[in-house]
Amino acid sequence: MTTRNELVITAEAGVPFVDTVREVDAPVADVYRAYVDPALIVQWLGPRAMEMELSSWDARVGGTWSYTHKDPDGNVYGFRGVFHGVDANQAITQTFEYDGFPGHVSLDRVTFEDLGGRTRIATHTVFQSQEDRDGMVGSGMAGGMEEGYQRLEELLGARQPAS
Amino acid sequence: MTTRNELVITAEAGVPFVDTVREVDAPVADVYRAYVDPALIVQWLGPRAMEMELSSWDARVGGTWSYTHKDPDGNVYGFRGVFHGVDANQAITQTFEYDGFPGHVSLDRVTFEDLGGRTRIATHTVFQSQEDRDGMVGSGMAGGMEEGYQRLEELLGARQPAS
Repeated sequence: MTTRNELVITAEAGVPFVDTVREVDAPVADVYRAYVDPALIVQWLGPRAMEMELSSWDARVGGTWSYTHKDPDGNVYGFRGVFHGVDANQAITQTFEYDGFPGHVSLDRVTFEDLGGRTRIATHTVFQSQEDRDGMVGSGMAGGMEEGYQRLEELLGARQPAS
Repeated sequence: MTTRNELVITAEAGVPFVDTVREVDAPVADVYRAYVDPALIVQWLGPRAMEMELSSWDARVGGTWSYTHKDPDGNVYGFRGVFHGVDANQAITQTFEYDGFPGHVSLDRVTFEDLGGRTRIATHTVFQSQEDRDGMVGSGMAGGMEEGYQRLEELLGARQPAS
């Protein structure tokens, strides 16, 4: 791991956006596959302490996705959405809804930039209100995302597994 | 038609939202059906001068939608997206993308409020950038939307057809 591989989150005041950038030491094709293959996504998305159970992860236009995360105390958190656009090795656009906050939907776009063996993963999320955005930022998303990216690097052989 | 049935569009400066409200003199179940039935949507959505050709309008979670509008000069405009959520007689959440501006996606939510024989139709749209929002507002969306609502009222027998 180099110091370049740091998660940067931008959430400007007064606009309902969250942007993140994270670089990983793995080729773009490998990174992309880890986002669209259900057998891979379940191995890295989210914090280590969460047990992920996938109901669907159908990464094509109109495909649905849904999963639950179970924490060590047995609390279950459900998430769901649909894929709007899937461009191989370039970008994925999908909706996102947390079952605990129904009716509040966000639109996520992740783009993959080929840095020559390395990949820059950028996300841009828009929320339906400023309150929804602020709630997400206040939920501790940063820690969970960074842990997910570290697991992704381990999965792709770009990082030693955590002991 | 009463003076209550006026389209109101709100687009505040500095936030990437567009909100609209329009009341129609028709029961909520009829209005809802006109939004989800492909045989009906094609009869009212958009300006009169446009010839609408529907490729898909599959109003269920993960369903896709796409259509083209052809103007009198033969210019064709394509639109597409997916349905994220469909709650009968209450709300529909879907993505929206104009083929002429690919990669720029918005998230639309329309809600139907039962006013007792009348219906209040409210839309809330979020864009991926302020520029996208401003571009949509500047595109003359107001005229096309109001004409569509008038056609909807005609279709539902709540208004005399335009001669």
